[in-house]
Amino acid sequence: MDFAFDARTEELRGRLLAFMDECVYPAEEAFEAQVAESGWAGPPLLEALKEEARRRGLWNLFLPGEHGAGLTNLQYAPLAEIMGRSPRIAPTATNCAAPDTGNMEVLSMFGSDRQRKEWLEPLLRGEIRSAFAMTEPDVASSDAANITLSIIRDGAEYVINGRKWFASGAMNPACKIFIVMGKTAPEASSHRQQSMVLVPRETPGVHVKRGMHVFGYSDADHGGHAEIVFEDARVPADNLIGEEGGGFAIAQARLGPGRIHHCMRLIGMAERAVELMCVRALSRTAFGKPLARQGVVQDWIAESRVKIEQLRLLVLKTAWLMDTVGNRGAHTEIQAIKIATPREVEWILDKAIQCHGAGGVSQDFPLAGLWAAARSLRLADGPDEVRKRSLAHRELKKHM
Amino acid sequence: MDFAFDARTEELRGRLLAFMDECVYPAEEAFEAQVAESGWAGPPLLEALKEEARRRGLWNLFLPGEHGAGLTNLQYAPLAEIMGRSPRIAPTATNCAAPDTGNMEVLSMFGSDRQRKEWLEPLLRGEIRSAFAMTEPDVASSDAANITLSIIRDGAEYVINGRKWFASGAMNPACKIFIVMGKTAPEASSHRQQSMVLVPRETPGVHVKRGMHVFGYSDADHGGHAEIVFEDARVPADNLIGEEGGGFAIAQARLGPGRIHHCMRLIGMAERAVELMCVRALSRTAFGKPLARQGVVQDWIAESRVKIEQLRLLVLKTAWLMDTVGNRGAHTEIQAIKIATPREVEWILDKAIQCHGAGGVSQDFPLAGLWAAARSLRLADGPDEVRKRSLAHRELKKHM
Amino acid sequence: MDFAFDARTEELRGRLLAFMDECVYPAEEAFEAQVAESGWAGPPLLEALKEEARRRGLWNLFLPGEHGAGLTNLQYAPLAEIMGRSPRIAPTATNCAAPDTGNMEVLSMFGSDRQRKEWLEPLLRGEIRSAFAMTEPDVASSDAANITLSIIRDGAEYVINGRKWFASGAMNPACKIFIVMGKTAPEASSHRQQSMVLVPRETPGVHVKRGMHVFGYSDADHGGHAEIVFEDARVPADNLIGEEGGGFAIAQARLGPGRIHHCMRLIGMAERAVELMCVRALSRTAFGKPLARQGVVQDWIAESRVKIEQLRLLVLKTAWLMDTVGNRGAHTEIQAIKIATPREVEWILDKAIQCHGAGGVSQDFPLAGLWAAARSLRLADGPDEVRKRSLAHRELKKHM
Amino acid sequence: MDFAFDARTEELRGRLLAFMDECVYPAEEAFEAQVAESGWAGPPLLEALKEEARRRGLWNLFLPGEHGAGLTNLQYAPLAEIMGRSPRIAPTATNCAAPDTGNMEVLSMFGSDRQRKEWLEPLLRGEIRSAFAMTEPDVASSDAANITLSIIRDGAEYVINGRKWFASGAMNPACKIFIVMGKTAPEASSHRQQSMVLVPRETPGVHVKRGMHVFGYSDADHGGHAEIVFEDARVPADNLIGEEGGGFAIAQARLGPGRIHHCMRLIGMAERAVELMCVRALSRTAFGKPLARQGVVQDWIAESRVKIEQLRLLVLKTAWLMDTVGNRGAHTEIQAIKIATPREVEWILDKAIQCHGAGGVSQDFPLAGLWAAARSLRLADGPDEVRKRSLAHRELKKHM
Repeated sequence: MDFAFDARTEELRGRLLAFMDECVYPAEEAFEAQVAESGWAGPPLLEALKEEARRRGLWNLFLPGEHGAGLTNLQYAPLAEIMGRSPRIAPTATNCAAPDTGNMEVLSMFGSDRQRKEWLEPLLRGEIRSAFAMTEPDVASSDAANITLSIIRDGAEYVINGRKWFASGAMNPACKIFIVMGKTAPEASSHRQQSMVLVPRETPGVHVKRGMHVFGYSDADHGGHAEIVFEDARVPADNLIGEEGGGFAIAQARLGPGRIHHCMRLIGMAERAVELMCVRALSRTAFGKPLARQGVVQDWIAESRVKIEQLRLLVLKTAWLMDTVGNRGAHTEIQAIKIATPREVEWILDKAIQCHGAGGVSQDFPLAGLWAAARSLRLADGPDEVRKRSLAHRELKKHM
Repeated sequence: MDFAFDARTEELRGRLLAFMDECVYPAEEAFEAQVAESGWAGPPLLEALKEEARRRGLWNLFLPGEHGAGLTNLQYAPLAEIMGRSPRIAPTATNCAAPDTGNMEVLSMFGSDRQRKEWLEPLLRGEIRSAFAMTEPDVASSDAANITLSIIRDGAEYVINGRKWFASGAMNPACKIFIVMGKTAPEASSHRQQSMVLVPRETPGVHVKRGMHVFGYSDADHGGHAEIVFEDARVPADNLIGEEGGGFAIAQARLGPGRIHHCMRLIGMAERAVELMCVRALSRTAFGKPLARQGVVQDWIAESRVKIEQLRLLVLKTAWLMDTVGNRGAHTEIQAIKIATPREVEWILDKAIQCHGAGGVSQDFPLAGLWAAARSLRLADGPDEVRKRSLAHRELKKHM
Repeated sequence: MDFAFDARTEELRGRLLAFMDECVYPAEEAFEAQVAESGWAGPPLLEALKEEARRRGLWNLFLPGEHGAGLTNLQYAPLAEIMGRSPRIAPTATNCAAPDTGNMEVLSMFGSDRQRKEWLEPLLRGEIRSAFAMTEPDVASSDAANITLSIIRDGAEYVINGRKWFASGAMNPACKIFIVMGKTAPEASSHRQQSMVLVPRETPGVHVKRGMHVFGYSDADHGGHAEIVFEDARVPADNLIGEEGGGFAIAQARLGPGRIHHCMRLIGMAERAVELMCVRALSRTAFGKPLARQGVVQDWIAESRVKIEQLRLLVLKTAWLMDTVGNRGAHTEIQAIKIATPREVEWILDKAIQCHGAGGVSQDFPLAGLWAAARSLRLADGPDEVRKRSLAHRELKKHM
Repeated sequence: MDFAFDARTEELRGRLLAFMDECVYPAEEAFEAQVAESGWAGPPLLEALKEEARRRGLWNLFLPGEHGAGLTNLQYAPLAEIMGRSPRIAPTATNCAAPDTGNMEVLSMFGSDRQRKEWLEPLLRGEIRSAFAMTEPDVASSDAANITLSIIRDGAEYVINGRKWFASGAMNPACKIFIVMGKTAPEASSHRQQSMVLVPRETPGVHVKRGMHVFGYSDADHGGHAEIVFEDARVPADNLIGEEGGGFAIAQARLGPGRIHHCMRLIGMAERAVELMCVRALSRTAFGKPLARQGVVQDWIAESRVKIEQLRLLVLKTAWLMDTVGNRGAHTEIQAIKIATPREVEWILDKAIQCHGAGGVSQDFPLAGLWAAARSLRLADGPDEVRKRSLAHRELKKHM
C-alpha cells in the first residue's frame, strides 16, 4: 500500500499545474466576459488555449490506449482534479471535456474503422464536438427498460423516432455528431433491447428544439443541454455502434471512467471553493472579528477538509480498482463515489457561498455556478437513489 | 389556546383561494412565456391580474392600519402562505410583493405627510414600484456598523456616495423610488450612525449598473437585483425618513413583518413542492413500481409534511406575538423563523427536484427557481449565522 | 387563533412548578442515591412525594373524564412538559407515569365495572403499578399482524402462550397487573385478530424472566423492561378487555394521548438539557474563553431553541386536534410528533452531552440517561419508519 | 499509488482472521455471561485466549520497534480493524488493548531502563494492566493549560495532589500502574508546565474512588473508568517519565498511533454492525416484505458502505503518512480521522440498532454497547470541536 503518485503522474501534474497558472486562471475573467456574447458556440479564446495545451503535451489525457495519452485511470484521475479547479475552461482546453470524453471512449472501444475515421479522429483533434442523447423527458430513464425512443431497421437504414433532452453540448453548432440510445428490440430481455447509433446533427428529421436550464443557467459556454426531437430521422445501418442489443452494455462501459472524471473534477471544484472560503473569511470582518475567527466558519472549513480527503481517496482507489480488476470488480466503488462526491461537494460549495454573503449566489464568484453543476450530478446518469438501491442489493447478497 | 383561524381570516382565505384557482394558476404558463420577452419590466399580464385582485378586495392585505387592509400579522400570515404557492405572480397581483411591502410599512410608520403623498400613495395604488438599498458589496453589511455609504448634509440637501447591490426590484423601470440606508454620523454610537433617505430613481448621480444574478436567475420578472452606484447624488433634506441616526431602528422595525411574509410564502412554496412531488411520484414508474411506492420517496414526503407543520405553527405564533407583545417581545421567534424556514423549505424543494429527475433542475418546473429563492433567503437581511449568534446570546443571558 | 394557555392550565402550571421547585428538584440527589440500593421496587422516597402531590391536587392530571382530573389533552400537555424536566421523579410522584397512564385510560374507556373496581381503582390511588405487554422478541411487532402470542378460549378461561419483552415497569414487584396483547383469531382480517386480556402477575404460567437493558441502563427505578414468558397461563374469560378482536382498536385508542405525554415530557427534558448546556457553557473555559463564547456552542444553543419552539407548538396543536376532532382527525399530527420529537430532542441531548465533556456521558449528570430514553422512543410503539410510511400514504392519497 | 496490502500484512490478516473465527467469536457468548459475575477483574476466559493468541504469534502487534511485533502503522492498522469486530475480546486477547498500548509506547519511547524493566516488561507479557490519568472533572482538560493536578518535587520524591477521572481500566485490580499527567511548573510557558509520572496503584494517598459510567455501562469487563484522588501521594523522583516539562510533548506523541488504533477498531465495529443489519433485515418481515426490501433500510445499508470505504482509506493513509513523514506531517490527517470516524460509525450503529427494533438497544445484541463506545470517542482526548478548530487554523494559514 502506497499513497504516493507515480513519476509519470507527478510529471504531468507539474506540467498541468503550470498550464493552469500560466494560461487558465489568467483567462477566467476574459472567458466570462466572452460568454455573454458568444452564444451557444462558446468563448472564442478557447481555441488559443487548446492550441497551447496541445503544444504542451496536455491533450487527450483522459484516453487510455493507443488513440490517447495512454494513461491509466489512476494516473489521469489527479489530472482531472486539477482541471476541475477551473471546470469551465481547463477540460475543454485540454480536449478532456464531457461528453466528448465518454463518446471518444465509446468510439475507441466499440466503433468500426469507418466510424472512428469519420468521428473519432476529428474529435481527438478537437475540431468538432459531440453529444450523448440518453435521457428522455417522458419516462424515468434511469431505468433503461423505460426508454421509448425507437430505432427501427428499414433496409439499409435505421429510422429513429422519439424525444431526448439534456443532451449536453448539443446546442453548440460545432457539435456535429450525436450518440443516441434507443430501442431496437422492445421485446427482448430488458438489457438487450437497447442499441446506440451515431446520428449526424444535419440528418433530416433531427430537430434541436431548445436548451434546457440548470438552476437558471443555460450553460451556453459548453453547448447547453439540448432537447432534441427525432422524427423519422434516418441514418445508414452501419451507424450502429457495436451490435444490435448492445446499447446497455456500451452505456455501462461508458459510465465507469466518466464517473471518475466527474468526481475528480468535483474534488477540484471543492478545493477551489475551500480556497475562496478561506480567502474571504480572512478578509471580511463582522461584529468585531474576521469571519475566519468565527467558530462556525472554522467548523465549515475543517469539515470541508475532512470531506475532501475522504472523497479523493475513495475516487483514487476506485480508479485503481478499475485499472487492476476492471469495471465489474469496481462496481460497488463506482457507485459509491457517485453517491458521495456530488452531495459532499455540494455541501462545501453551499458553505463557501454562505461565507460570501449575497456575492456567493451571484455571477461575481464562480460558486453558485459550481453548485448548480454539483447539484445536477446528483441526477446525472440517474438519481443517487437508484445507485444506493443497487449498492444495497450487492451488500445484502453477501449475507443471503 | 386555539388553533383555528378567525372568521375574517377564513373569509379572506376563501376569497384568495378562489382568486388563485380562477386567475393565478391559469396565468402561470402565459406568465413564463411573457417573462422571456418582457425584460426588466415584467410580464404585462400582471396589470390585468392587479385590477382583478383589487376588484375582489384582495389588495394591500399586508398593510395594517388605516392605509391598508388593516389586518393583524396573524390574519395576514395565512394569506401570504397562499400567495407563496405562486410566488412570482400572486404577491405582485395583490400589491403584496416585497420589497414594496416593507417600504410601504416604513413610509406608513415613519414617513412625513409629503413623503406619504408623493411615494406611499402611488405605491398603495400599485402604480409604481420601489427598492430598498441596504446591502453593500464591499463589506459584511449584516453588521450595520460596517456600512460605508455616506449621506452627508450639505445645506438643504443630502449628498450620497457609495455602492449598493442586491437592491431587489430596482432594475424595473417602474421602480421610481429607492430607500437608501447609509451613514450620516460615522462617529456616533454604533446604532445611531445610520439614516435612511428617499432617493428618486432619476436623481443625477444615481447609476443603476447591472442586475445581479441569483444562481443563474436574473429574476427579471420582478425587477432583478440591482447594483447601484451613488456618486454625489443629491436629494432634498426632507427626503430623510424619520430622524438622523434613526436608520438602524427603522431597519429593525421593517424586519419583523417582512420575515413573517417571507416565511409564510416559503411555506406556500413548500406546499406546492409537496404537491408536485406527490403528483410526480404517482405518475412515474422505475424498476417496476411507481416512485410513490419507493420507500425513500415516501420518506421525503413524510419528512416534508412533518417539517411544514412545525414551521407554519412557529411562524403563526410569531405573528401572534408581534400582534400581542410587539416586535421586541417576539425577538427570539422572529429570529427563529428566519433560521428554520428557508433551510427546511430548501430541503423540501431539493427532494421535490430529485423526484423530478433532470426536469427538476430545468425551466419546465418551478422547483429550481423556488429553490434559488429559498436558498438566497438564508442570506437575506444577513446570514443565518448572525441570527443564531444573537439568539444564543439571549438564551445564555437567562442563566447569567 | 390564540397561543395563550387558558386560566385552568395556567393555575395548574403554577401549582406544578411550585411542586417541582419545592419537592421534586430537591429530591433528585437523594433519589439517585436510593436507586443504587432499592432494586426493582424503586426509591422509597417516592411515596412521600406521591402523598404530597396528592395533597396539592396534582394527581391523575393525565386522565380526562370522571375518573381523573378531567383535563383536556391541551390542558394536560403543558403539565406533562413540566414533569418531563425531572422525568424519573415527577410523573411517578403525580401518578402520571407511563405505562400506568395508558393502562388506566384503557380501563377507564373499555374496562368492565369489575375490571375497573379491581384494577383501575388501586391504580388511580397509586397503590399498584401495571404493565403493557405488546412487543415480542421474535417478530417485527410494529406490524400487529405479526404478533404471535396466542390467547385461546377454553371454557370460562383464556389460555395464553407466548413471549413478550420490553414490558416496561413489570420488574417492579408492585406491578400487579399486565395488559397483554395477543391473537384470539389468527384467521380473521388483519385488524380483528388481536385481543387484550388482563393477566395478574401471580397467575401460574406467567414467568417474568429478566429485565432488558436500554443502552446499559436497567431502568430499575421505574420497574425496568421485563421479558415475560406465558406458558399455559389461564385467566378468567371476563379478563378480556372490551370484545374479542378489539385489541387492535384499543391499542390505537391508547396511542394518541400516550404520544402527547411522551412528546411533551421529551420537550421538558430538552428544556432541562438547554439549561444545563447554558450553565455549563458559562462556567467552563477552554483556550482562553468560556465555552459560551465559542461559536459552535452558540450554534447548538440557538438550534436547540429553534427546535424546541417548533416541537412544542406541533404537540400542542395535536392535543387541540384530539380534543376537537378526535384521534382519527389528528392522525397525521399524532404520527408527526412521534417522528419529530424523539430525534430532535436526542439531538439536543447529544449537544448538551458534548458540552459537558466526559461528565456528559456519566452518571454525574442526567443527560446520558435522558438521551437513552429519547433514543428508545424512536423505537417505542414501532420504529419511526413505520409512521413515516403511513404518513406518506396519507399525503399521497390527496393526489390520487 | 497502490491500494493492496503488503505480504506481511496479508499473512497476519489471515492468521488473525483465523483466530477470530476459531477462538474469539465462539467465546463471545461465554464472555458476556462471565462479565455479569467477574466484576472489575474481567472475564476469566480471557487468560486462555491470551495464551492462544501468543502461541499463534498474535501478540503485541501494535508495538513498532524491538519491544513489539515491529509492524509499521500501516501494517498494524488493518489488524486493528479486524480486532474491532469483537472489541471487548480481541484487543485484550492479543495484548493490543488501550490504554496499555499507548502506555507501552510511552514507556518504550521515553521510559528509563528501570521503568521499562519494572513496568514495560510485565505489560508486554500481559501480566499486569495500566491506566492513563489525564482528564480532570473540574476543568476543560482538552486544553492542557487547564490541568490542575500538581506534581511537586520534594527532595527525592514527587508529591502529587489532585483529582482525575475516566482513567480507563483503573478499576481492574490487575491494573498496577498509572501514568499521571500533572503540572510541575505552572508558571512555565503553556506547553512546558506538564510532566508525567508513574504512580503505582498501591502508593499511599492514591484513592481509586469509583467507576464512572458511559451511558448505562460500567465497562467493568475492561476495568471501567476510574475516578482517582491523589492526596499527598509520593513517588520516587525517578518515576518521572522523560524530563520535567515534557508531559505535553509525550501526550502528543502518544496520540497519533492511538487514534489510528481507535479509528480502525471503530471501522471493524462498523463492519460488524453492517453485517448484523443485513442479517436482521433479511430475516425480519413487516408489512408484507422483509426489511431488506424496504427502501429506507436499503438506503442505510448503502450509506454505511459508502461511509466505511471512505473512512478506512483515510485512516490507512494517515497511518502511511505517520510511517513516512512522521506525526507532525500527518497532523491534519490525525485530526481528520478522529473527527470523522466516531461520528460516522455512530451513525451506522444507530441505523443497525433501529433495524433491530427494541432488541437493538438491549443487551441481546452488541450494538448499543458499541454505540456507547463510539459516542464516547467523540469526547476522548478532548471533544471533536477542539480538533476542528485546530484543523481550520492550519487550513487558513495556507492563505495568510
